[in-house]
Amino acid sequence: MVAEIISIGDELLIGQVINTNASWMATQLNLIGIDVVQITVISDNKEAIKTSIDNAFKRADIIMMTGGLGPTNDDITKICLCEYFDSKLVFDESTYLRIEKLFAQRGFDVTALNRQQAEVPDKCKVIPNNNGTASGMWFEKNGKILISMPGVPFEMKTMVTNYIILQLKILNKVVIFHKTIHIQGIGESFLADLIKDWENQLPNNIKLAYLPQPGLIRLRLSAKGKTTDKLDVQVFTEIEKLRKIIPDLIFGYDDDTLEEVVGKLLTTKNMTVSTAESCTGGYLSHLITTIPGSSAYYKGSIIAYSNEVKMQILGVSDETLEKHGAVSNQTVKEMAVGVRNLLKTDYAIAVSGIAGPDGGSDEKPVGTIWIAVADKNGVVAEKFLHGEDRTRNIRKAALSALMLLRKVILQEC
Amino acid sequence: MVAEIISIGDELLIGQVINTNASWMATQLNLIGIDVVQITVISDNKEAIKTSIDNAFKRADIIMMTGGLGPTNDDITKICLCEYFDSKLVFDESTYLRIEKLFAQRGFDVTALNRQQAEVPDKCKVIPNNNGTASGMWFEKNGKILISMPGVPFEMKTMVTNYIILQLKILNKVVIFHKTIHIQGIGESFLADLIKDWENQLPNNIKLAYLPQPGLIRLRLSAKGKTTDKLDVQVFTEIEKLRKIIPDLIFGYDDDTLEEVVGKLLTTKNMTVSTAESCTGGYLSHLITTIPGSSAYYKGSIIAYSNEVKMQILGVSDETLEKHGAVSNQTVKEMAVGVRNLLKTDYAIAVSGIAGPDGGSDEKPVGTIWIAVADKNGVVAEKFLHGEDRTRNIRKAALSALMLLRKVILQEC
Repeated sequence: MVAEIISIGDELLIGQVINTNASWMATQLNLIGIDVVQITVISDNKEAIKTSIDNAFKRADIIMMTGGLGPTNDDITKICLCEYFDSKLVFDESTYLRIEKLFAQRGFDVTALNRQQAEVPDKCKVIPNNNGTASGMWFEKNGKILISMPGVPFEMKTMVTNYIILQLKILNKVVIFHKTIHIQGIGESFLADLIKDWENQLPNNIKLAYLPQPGLIRLRLSAKGKTTDKLDVQVFTEIEKLRKIIPDLIFGYDDDTLEEVVGKLLTTKNMTVSTAESCTGGYLSHLITTIPGSSAYYKGSIIAYSNEVKMQILGVSDETLEKHGAVSNQTVKEMAVGVRNLLKTDYAIAVSGIAGPDGGSDEKPVGTIWIAVADKNGVVAEKFLHGEDRTRNIRKAALSALMLLRKVILQEC
Repeated sequence: MVAEIISIGDELLIGQVINTNASWMATQLNLIGIDVVQITVISDNKEAIKTSIDNAFKRADIIMMTGGLGPTNDDITKICLCEYFDSKLVFDESTYLRIEKLFAQRGFDVTALNRQQAEVPDKCKVIPNNNGTASGMWFEKNGKILISMPGVPFEMKTMVTNYIILQLKILNKVVIFHKTIHIQGIGESFLADLIKDWENQLPNNIKLAYLPQPGLIRLRLSAKGKTTDKLDVQVFTEIEKLRKIIPDLIFGYDDDTLEEVVGKLLTTKNMTVSTAESCTGGYLSHLITTIPGSSAYYKGSIIAYSNEVKMQILGVSDETLEKHGAVSNQTVKEMAVGVRNLLKTDYAIAVSGIAGPDGGSDEKPVGTIWIAVADKNGVVAEKFLHGEDRTRNIRKAALSALMLLRKVILQEC
């Protein structure tokens, strides 16, 4: 089975909104083995909607359509679909009750305009929307499927996850098992080189995808097969082989993030951490505190953006700064030890580097980052050389710092 | 003139890459008065490429196409365009020299595969690409235009900005003048209500667009007219009227960011700032230090994620914390004064709040944020009530904090 996506909305055509809905849906379809052959973005225009459906049905079995289902006059998708599927609008009691409940929660009465939202084409199966007034609609005609959903990402995603994907999975009959592996601390081409023999020996039914992000690489293994195949066992066997090649670079799987993984490690061990940041300027603390409940293990940070703060608050000696500079093995070590003593935590991370664009030299070019982790046993430091882009350097330095903390914690286990 | 965008690439159809290219191009076209009527995403497939061009030319005068111009076998756009425009590939000396120069900069020789990149269709105008090997191509046929560009965002954007938009502007003949106004500290519906009379009295040739982002609202005024019209004067007159209605909410124009505007104010006045953060957990410091050169005015921060740090380092009294709690007028004020004394800066900002999802109460629900700014004259504090989403609360709190600092600095001027 192949699918097409039709996104309806002027906000997409004037560039005001980026079409993240389409990529999200494409990803979900791919995960169940359905390829997307075209994505089309059009305006709320009858002619455009009908032509797009006609053309898409020439190529695809399934059309996933979003947008144009609001209660105002410019939302015409429902009327177009009635005409296209030779259907008429009927009042749907259960949809009305859902809308009424939604309004009651917010303390409003249902207006006449919103009452219309309970009218649905008689030839569709209604997909309930628990987060908004517009229902989803599932049409079938000549063995093809058209699914229409609201364009509000949260409403659309809930429908796709809780209903549509489950239905399409049954119809598509391909069984597919995915596992995403999260890697930090190596560039894409170096990783590719390191694991090429492993990649080449993968069974034919397992596909590998590289999904790089700044400072991180995700590898996705997708195994296709029949219901009787043990796809999960097959994938886990391959992951075990990979772990032997790059044991230190894998930090998590699927929805894991590095900040979450480190947070869980600290929680499990009932340990605390503090940070001292120079070039990352608060981004490391920000990453750690994006996790709800991080206050249980994170005590705080000294952002020492000037040398005075490094000396007066963190207790870095003026001799160290003078002899080795702020971006050095010695300075980050003193920063880490300093903040650990000051905030009385089990672990402490310190970062000092040159994020750029200015401040680089031949000896210490832009992208030079020193990271230290202190604990009760002492302090270790590592040097990293990232690129020229300030934003990426800050992100990569913070990720490298979390990765080093993870390593230190695990070595103690 | 109306345009269509065709994006070629499997990475877009599997959802791996979000189609930011298309929205960026749509924005650029809109800014010169060209409407985009459809965006189509297709695979590197001859049939799909030709069909899409045929269909797009039925509706549009201009096609902007990206992707499929790499040197490998799966990149077939150039061959398709040759067939479509009945053209043949010829070796282009100037393109070759450009590629050679590009490779020399990176210390490589030009390979045979990359030499092919210097072959261009004889019926197109070549658009030089200074950042990559694939040239842009400008075709014209029956009064219609097709422009093909590489899909690498940086390469495409340079071509569009430096060449394509300038050419299309001349052809389109519509004169258009835009000004974007940046607003912080009010919700969209409240703002709309406040300025509705102003909006209703705008001249017919000036269009207003709301471009909201979390914690910020951008208003874009677009004036269309003839070359002889003084569109800029017309727009500035309207902005002056708006400034009288919301004098405290506008912080910048066009490409300004709040962190940059505050940084420039501090630089101009030769003043320094420090921060003390609780709920924002480093995000405020991160925002400030995204600006290159911020070390000139930013000294650092104490991220006091625990009450011990608030007391022991910032000097918040245990009595204050006990009586009023960490999220209170009294505590943020003591935090601001504390960090100002500690880091010896002219200004200091402190933030304490409940980012969520936990920690809220009836008296202080999730989203309650206190912000204080201290200077030589004393300390002021303000309370904000944001929403339920942790990430948005952190972002909004940091923006509100910068806005309060801006207000304090400006009042002293």
